[in-house]
Amino acid sequence: MLNNIRIVLVETSHSGNIGSAARAMKTMGLKHLYLVSPKQSIDEQAIALSAGAEDVVQNAVVVNNFEEAIADCSLVIGTSARLRHLQNTLVEPRQCGDIAMQEAHSGQVAIVFGREKFGLTNDELLKCRYHLTIPANPEYSSLNLAMAVQLVSYELRMAYLNHQELPVSTIENLNQTVSEKVTAKELEYFYEHTQRVYQSLGFIQNQGVMQKLRHLYNRVDIERNELNILRGMLSAVEKQLNCYQDK
Amino acid sequence: MLNNIRIVLVETSHSGNIGSAARAMKTMGLKHLYLVSPKQSIDEQAIALSAGAEDVVQNAVVVNNFEEAIADCSLVIGTSARLRHLQNTLVEPRQCGDIAMQEAHSGQVAIVFGREKFGLTNDELLKCRYHLTIPANPEYSSLNLAMAVQLVSYELRMAYLNHQELPVSTIENLNQTVSEKVTAKELEYFYEHTQRVYQSLGFIQNQGVMQKLRHLYNRVDIERNELNILRGMLSAVEKQLNCYQDK
Repeated sequence: MLNNIRIVLVETSHSGNIGSAARAMKTMGLKHLYLVSPKQSIDEQAIALSAGAEDVVQNAVVVNNFEEAIADCSLVIGTSARLRHLQNTLVEPRQCGDIAMQEAHSGQVAIVFGREKFGLTNDELLKCRYHLTIPANPEYSSLNLAMAVQLVSYELRMAYLNHQELPVSTIENLNQTVSEKVTAKELEYFYEHTQRVYQSLGFIQNQGVMQKLRHLYNRVDIERNELNILRGMLSAVEKQLNCYQDK
Repeated sequence: MLNNIRIVLVETSHSGNIGSAARAMKTMGLKHLYLVSPKQSIDEQAIALSAGAEDVVQNAVVVNNFEEAIADCSLVIGTSARLRHLQNTLVEPRQCGDIAMQEAHSGQVAIVFGREKFGLTNDELLKCRYHLTIPANPEYSSLNLAMAVQLVSYELRMAYLNHQELPVSTIENLNQTVSEKVTAKELEYFYEHTQRVYQSLGFIQNQGVMQKLRHLYNRVDIERNELNILRGMLSAVEKQLNCYQDK
């Protein structure tokens, strides 16, 4: 489904931002990049900053205008400042992820980012169904273009992952984890052992301490190898105690 | 509350990444940056890439080691790859935001990012209560350091904004629960104490045991009265040991 979502950058000034945006996209599993009249063509700087995402940059579709980039899309979401006249269509990245993912089941989706200096024009914004705004610090909301692409790509991926059901391997992992857990009986032996040793040491004189220890260990979901260590520690103390008493 | 959360960068190689990370933080309303032994000091490159977040860079606290950066924190979350042995403590950015925000009502929180090339060491990871992993594209998960800071800062801000809507009573409850938590330093004393005592007993002979114990206690969110009991138990064993050695 992520395959049906494209990132569109409009009149980007710095080729480095194209590279960084491509890298950000690829880390989140997106690969379709459209460039509307970039001010700098794809150069060494773009390739360098794309790091391992050179494929995304090299496969970018360069078009002359906004309309071409979105022509076959059934949903277009454009980034924007939080403008009053757009308030009915404003979405934040999380909601954007959900909306885009739903649409991507059956159609092509474009998420459009404007120019570094002044974003999308009013004319361009009018061609977007939703307007995406990032809930940044009102005192300093200056996100770098690639950072904005990273956040939005992340929310697209989160929505995608939430849509997926658990793969078999994860379920197997969960089962394996559970099998190493200890039984209530084993835990009970551990508590008895603890009580015995620390009563001998004179540290435990009433039930208060054992209650607190139970509260502690009960909530940690202890694993068998951990319980073995704790039992081993008790035995080490016990051995020392016996040794002392024998003298 | 965002004021009680710090971003810690460990041995960052490129000063530009420090600047970009500072910008990312500020866009999301975070301002406390700690630098553990940065490989390059704060230079023109760092300032240039921080854009309008020069204040965050200039006010960064530079320390010599990881422990200093987290000493007064009651919650430490470290970034990590999705490692099998950490599976019980792994959190994704969204959950990280929620956990950090809850703790930040009453304590200091550190989110720690490792070196560009190889992240945090095992020793450093053991000092973290949770391990943060970004659910990136498994075929290309190479997020730039500042991009990772941006995503995590974004989720912190989202949790902060969501929290604003919580009724007062819930926030008060959170405060009560959290107020008895221990700091990283106190926990560190406990580990040292444990190691000392059980080395004397001959039970601890290598780092494996301590690593498992750290893994166990780091994930339980130990409370001060519980730590006091565990320290008391250690002292009881120690007393016995000394007593024995005196004879």
